[in-house]
Amino acid sequence: MGDVVRSEESGDRSSPRTGPVLADLDEDELLDRILPLFPPAPGVLVPAGDDTALLAAGDAVLATTDTMVRGRDWLDGWSSAEDVGAKVVAQNVADIAAMGGVPTGLLVTLVADVRTPVAWVEDFSRGLAEAAADARVPVVGGDLSSAPSGTLVVSVTALGDLEGRAPVLRSGARPGDVVAVCGTLGRSAAGLLLLQEGTPSLAPDLVAAHRRPRPAYDQGPQAALAGATAMLDLSDGLVRDGRRIARASGVQLALSGEALAADVAALAPAVGTTRARECVLTGGEEHSLLACFPAGRELPTGWRALGEVRDGEGLTLDGQSLHGGGWDHFAGADRG
Amino acid sequence: MGDVVRSEESGDRSSPRTGPVLADLDEDELLDRILPLFPPAPGVLVPAGDDTALLAAGDAVLATTDTMVRGRDWLDGWSSAEDVGAKVVAQNVADIAAMGGVPTGLLVTLVADVRTPVAWVEDFSRGLAEAAADARVPVVGGDLSSAPSGTLVVSVTALGDLEGRAPVLRSGARPGDVVAVCGTLGRSAAGLLLLQEGTPSLAPDLVAAHRRPRPAYDQGPQAALAGATAMLDLSDGLVRDGRRIARASGVQLALSGEALAADVAALAPAVGTTRARECVLTGGEEHSLLACFPAGRELPTGWRALGEVRDGEGLTLDGQSLHGGGWDHFAGADRG
Repeated sequence: MGDVVRSEESGDRSSPRTGPVLADLDEDELLDRILPLFPPAPGVLVPAGDDTALLAAGDAVLATTDTMVRGRDWLDGWSSAEDVGAKVVAQNVADIAAMGGVPTGLLVTLVADVRTPVAWVEDFSRGLAEAAADARVPVVGGDLSSAPSGTLVVSVTALGDLEGRAPVLRSGARPGDVVAVCGTLGRSAAGLLLLQEGTPSLAPDLVAAHRRPRPAYDQGPQAALAGATAMLDLSDGLVRDGRRIARASGVQLALSGEALAADVAALAPAVGTTRARECVLTGGEEHSLLACFPAGRELPTGWRALGEVRDGEGLTLDGQSLHGGGWDHFAGADRG
Repeated sequence: MGDVVRSEESGDRSSPRTGPVLADLDEDELLDRILPLFPPAPGVLVPAGDDTALLAAGDAVLATTDTMVRGRDWLDGWSSAEDVGAKVVAQNVADIAAMGGVPTGLLVTLVADVRTPVAWVEDFSRGLAEAAADARVPVVGGDLSSAPSGTLVVSVTALGDLEGRAPVLRSGARPGDVVAVCGTLGRSAAGLLLLQEGTPSLAPDLVAAHRRPRPAYDQGPQAALAGATAMLDLSDGLVRDGRRIARASGVQLALSGEALAADVAALAPAVGTTRARECVLTGGEEHSLLACFPAGRELPTGWRALGEVRDGEGLTLDGQSLHGGGWDHFAGADRG
């Protein structure tokens, strides 16, 4: 892990290094500072503070978890504590949305070097609380752990409810379905490229998309109501995630280059056409929803067709098979 | 964190350092090795592998999360990968039991340096799967993350169901109630002491209690059925956790030294009487259940009285007020 370049040009987002660190507070004192950010909410029958939380549920509960590690998922120079808090919420709630569900509660784990500034933890909690409020989901519990020098890990578990709908799995795509996306493609990856090159000012909107993805969570339930046969959120790139639907469903996703042309064109001024194309196809952390819908139906508002489902396997672009690409959590571990 | 003494006398539990490490596998290859350990189970409507799991639920769901960090919660020389997997399950399921619930699903997060041996991850998964099977709870999802050099963090979220019972909170104790415990006191802390001193062979059963606590999960629902007014599991020591019930309930827990004498005597041969007393009062990670019951009722089988609930505050032993002691996650961070 290289040192982070700290300058205005690099868009330094570090929290100030002055003030108390975690070792200066005991656990209760830290909780006293954070817990007021997470008020009681309807549906939370027992909030954080007992052995467990107790949440109202339907006859089934969605559950998912996603983690961010400093040095791997973010660098302090590129992402503020608020950004990290907001992003870890978005990643998890997008997974709930991708099943067609609405989030009902979050559990938050912080594993931190005791020399971490208390201000970082407060800022992280504030970003997390704001993103949770945006997604209309309460924080209901969590865990604090100290860790060896340098470690900073944040982890969220999201619970959700289908409100009586069937879950939309990855395995339901059928030949003839339309492949569609709701939201942008490649913007987060393009923003990361600019940060890596120290030129975030070329396109601050792309950098913002990398720091704080804002998936259209409501579109998950909307897609379910519109009859989506398969769905996921784009965590690891269009090719890699599209191939997951293909594999789970036993079909081929055949995408059209023309349908992606506007996405590529939107990124090209900032990162060039070749890299724009790569961002659109393989850029991770976008968290837009990718779904398949039965042919002949109107797509829900906000969705656009990218291609169609065919007999076969894998993912093609204008008939050309695309392999690999996208983010692998271990093989890509040195990405920074 | 000091270097771990590696010798037979120290009870070295490290996994072998030969063979592939995580960097040699991609995420799918690693999952192929682990997922077969976690078979489908009734109640798991959608298992790991989609965006989220989907679990059958009653009208409410219990949710809790607990994390273990290498170098803080375990040392490789003292706890095998199987031990760590088993212990992180026990910690979480004990929290579900302490509400009077039964566990319905676990989500598991592993954050690991890519140089971690694959064998460690497989052994961890096996220990976790065995403990989950003991607790009759399926593993339904999780997350894998690579991490900077040296980091190894495991985290579990447990979900649970009350089967129609009311939750047993910390806040329900009333003056006149009996304070009772189900299970042992201080054994885990005494085992840790022996490991720290390099003399685990003095009492292998205490060391085993430290490595793999085996709380009587079933006694949580049993206590709820028997009318328990307040309950928690002993994570941070009798004094610290007892004071939590006292504070939440606005009462005093008045314990009797005589009731604890057998616990102290059981540990004294291994660690001496003074330290045995300290282990019984402040030893963490025991995960026995501490509860209050209305006076005049017979305690459930397996429970024994430690004292009574009175007007007042805090926790007393033979009338003497006891403060502090026990494990604080930040203040105690250098405990090792």
